[in-house]
Amino acid sequence: MRKPAFVAVDWGTSSFRGWLMTADGSVLAETRGPEGMLHCANTGFAPVLADHLAKLGAAQDLPVLICGMAGAKQGWIEAPYLRTPTRLDALHDGAQRVATPGDVRILPGIAQADASAPDVMRGEETQLLGVTESGFTGLVCIPGTHSKWIRIESGSLVSFTTYMTGELFSVIAQHSILKHAIDPDAGSPAANDAFRDGLQRALNAPAALPASLFSLRAAQLLGFEKQADGTARLSGLLIGTEIADAASRYGKHPVRLIGAGALKDLYAAALAAAGVEITIVDAERASQQGLTKAAIHLWGAKFT
Amino acid sequence: MRKPAFVAVDWGTSSFRGWLMTADGSVLAETRGPEGMLHCANTGFAPVLADHLAKLGAAQDLPVLICGMAGAKQGWIEAPYLRTPTRLDALHDGAQRVATPGDVRILPGIAQADASAPDVMRGEETQLLGVTESGFTGLVCIPGTHSKWIRIESGSLVSFTTYMTGELFSVIAQHSILKHAIDPDAGSPAANDAFRDGLQRALNAPAALPASLFSLRAAQLLGFEKQADGTARLSGLLIGTEIADAASRYGKHPVRLIGAGALKDLYAAALAAAGVEITIVDAERASQQGLTKAAIHLWGAKFT
Repeated sequence: MRKPAFVAVDWGTSSFRGWLMTADGSVLAETRGPEGMLHCANTGFAPVLADHLAKLGAAQDLPVLICGMAGAKQGWIEAPYLRTPTRLDALHDGAQRVATPGDVRILPGIAQADASAPDVMRGEETQLLGVTESGFTGLVCIPGTHSKWIRIESGSLVSFTTYMTGELFSVIAQHSILKHAIDPDAGSPAANDAFRDGLQRALNAPAALPASLFSLRAAQLLGFEKQADGTARLSGLLIGTEIADAASRYGKHPVRLIGAGALKDLYAAALAAAGVEITIVDAERASQQGLTKAAIHLWGAKFT
Repeated sequence: MRKPAFVAVDWGTSSFRGWLMTADGSVLAETRGPEGMLHCANTGFAPVLADHLAKLGAAQDLPVLICGMAGAKQGWIEAPYLRTPTRLDALHDGAQRVATPGDVRILPGIAQADASAPDVMRGEETQLLGVTESGFTGLVCIPGTHSKWIRIESGSLVSFTTYMTGELFSVIAQHSILKHAIDPDAGSPAANDAFRDGLQRALNAPAALPASLFSLRAAQLLGFEKQADGTARLSGLLIGTEIADAASRYGKHPVRLIGAGALKDLYAAALAAAGVEITIVDAERASQQGLTKAAIHLWGAKFT
C-alpha cells in the first residue's frame, strides 16, 4: 500500500474537493462537497477543512495544500496574486501558511496587472502547473463559467484572457427574452446542427454577438427554428465568439484543453470545427498534478 | 382651435401612449400609462383603450390608429408582419381592424424572413415612416432595449438588424458577477471617461466583448478603476460593439438617430466618437408623425 504524503484541496467559489495524495501524485481517497468560499464566509473555513480531513482519514500531521478561492481577499487568508509574467514552477513561493494547527498552505492566484488588459485567475494557475512541463511553450484553454486562454512561454505564464462565456450563457438563458427561446430539457448541444451553425456564424462574425442573440429569438418567431434548438445555438454562438477572439489574440496554434464533462466535449468539438489542434486533459487530474508538483517543492524532503 | 381628427396610440410591451391628433399631425392632448401588452394579457385591451380615450376626451366616432406590440400574436389582434423589402408608405395596407365599437386599427410590424438573418420589429416601422420622406435613402438607428439599425432605399425598408444591447446591459448589470462592479447611483455615463474608453475599445475590437466584460471586473479588483465607473464602461463596451458591427454591415454613412432622453444622448456621443454623422429625431414625435401619415392614407378623405 502506498503511503499518504499530503492532502490536496481545490477550494472554489461554490465547491470543495479534497484528495489524499501519495508523493508521486496518485489519489488514495477523495472527498467533495458544496462548502465553497461563499458557504465558508458564514461557517468559517477551519471546521469545513477538519470535516473533510476526517472523511479522508488523513493523519493529523499530514500537510495540506490548497488552491483556489480560499486564497482570495474574501477567502480564508489572502494569498496575494503573483504578477505576469511568472514561472508556473514558482507558484509554491507565493503559498501562504494558515494560522491553524498542522501545516496548511494556500497557493496564490495570478494577476495580469496591465491597465490595458487587467485579468485575474485563482485555481487555474495550479491546473496549468499540472499540465505543463517545466519548459513548456504553448496555448492552454480552460472552459468554464469564466473561460480562460493562457499563453505560456518556456514555463512562464506570460499573458491570459478571461471570457465570461459560461456566465453569459446562464444570465441570457435565465433572465433575457431568450428564456422563451431555450428549452431546458433539450438534449446535448454537441449533437445539434444549431450548435454547429451558431458556432460557424460566430467564428465568421464574432462582433455580431448582440445581433445574433436577437436573431436566435426571431428565427423561432418566424418558424425557421424550434425552441429545442435554442440552447444549442446559444452555446455555439457564445463559444464561437470566444474561440474567434482568442485566435485573433494568440494565433491559431495547438491548444491544451483542460476540461471535464459535457463542456469539455463541446469545446473539443468547437475547437476542432475551428481548425484548432487539441490535446485534452482532465480538469481534476490537472489540479491534482499541479498541487503535487507544488507540494514536492514545499515538502519533498519529508516525502522520501 | 384645431379639430381632433384621430387618436394615435403607441402600445408597447410595457407602456401605453396615446395622443389626440389633428389631421396635420399636431398633438392636442396626451395620455400615458403602464398598461402595455403584458398588462393587457390579463385585463384585456378594450377596457384599457376605453379608459385612455376618456382621458383624452376623444369623441366616440374618432378613428383610432395603433402601432406596436398590441398587434403581436400575443397582443389584441394579430397584424401580420409585412416582409422586407417593403415600402414604408404601404404600412397602412397591412392595418387590421379590431372587432370593437368604433374604427380601431392596428398597424403591422415588419419581418425580415431570411433564414440567414431573421429579424422582426413592431412599432419602429411606424417611427421610420414618420421620420423619412417618401423617396428617402439612408440609414436609421433606433437605440433601446433591442436597438435597431435600418437600411432604407427609395422609401423601402430593405434590411435591418436588431441588437440586444439594452437588454444585455440590464441582465449583466443585475444578474452577472458584474453586479459587484456596477454602482446603480453613478452619474451619467456620457460624462465619464470610462464610457469613452470602453466605447473606443469596443469600436477597435468588437469581438472582444465577452473578455472585456470580465476585464471590467478585474480592473476594479486590481485597483485600476472604481465601482463608480462600472456603469459607464459597461455602457461604452456594449454600445461600441453595436456601432462597430452595424458599421461593418451597413457602412459608415450618415445616420438618422431616433431616440429620447439619456439613451439618445449616449448614442449621439458614441456615434460622434465613431465618426458617424447624425441627425437626431425625437422618438415620440417620430411615432406621432408615422401614425399621422398612415391615418391620412386610411381616413384622409374624412379629415378634410
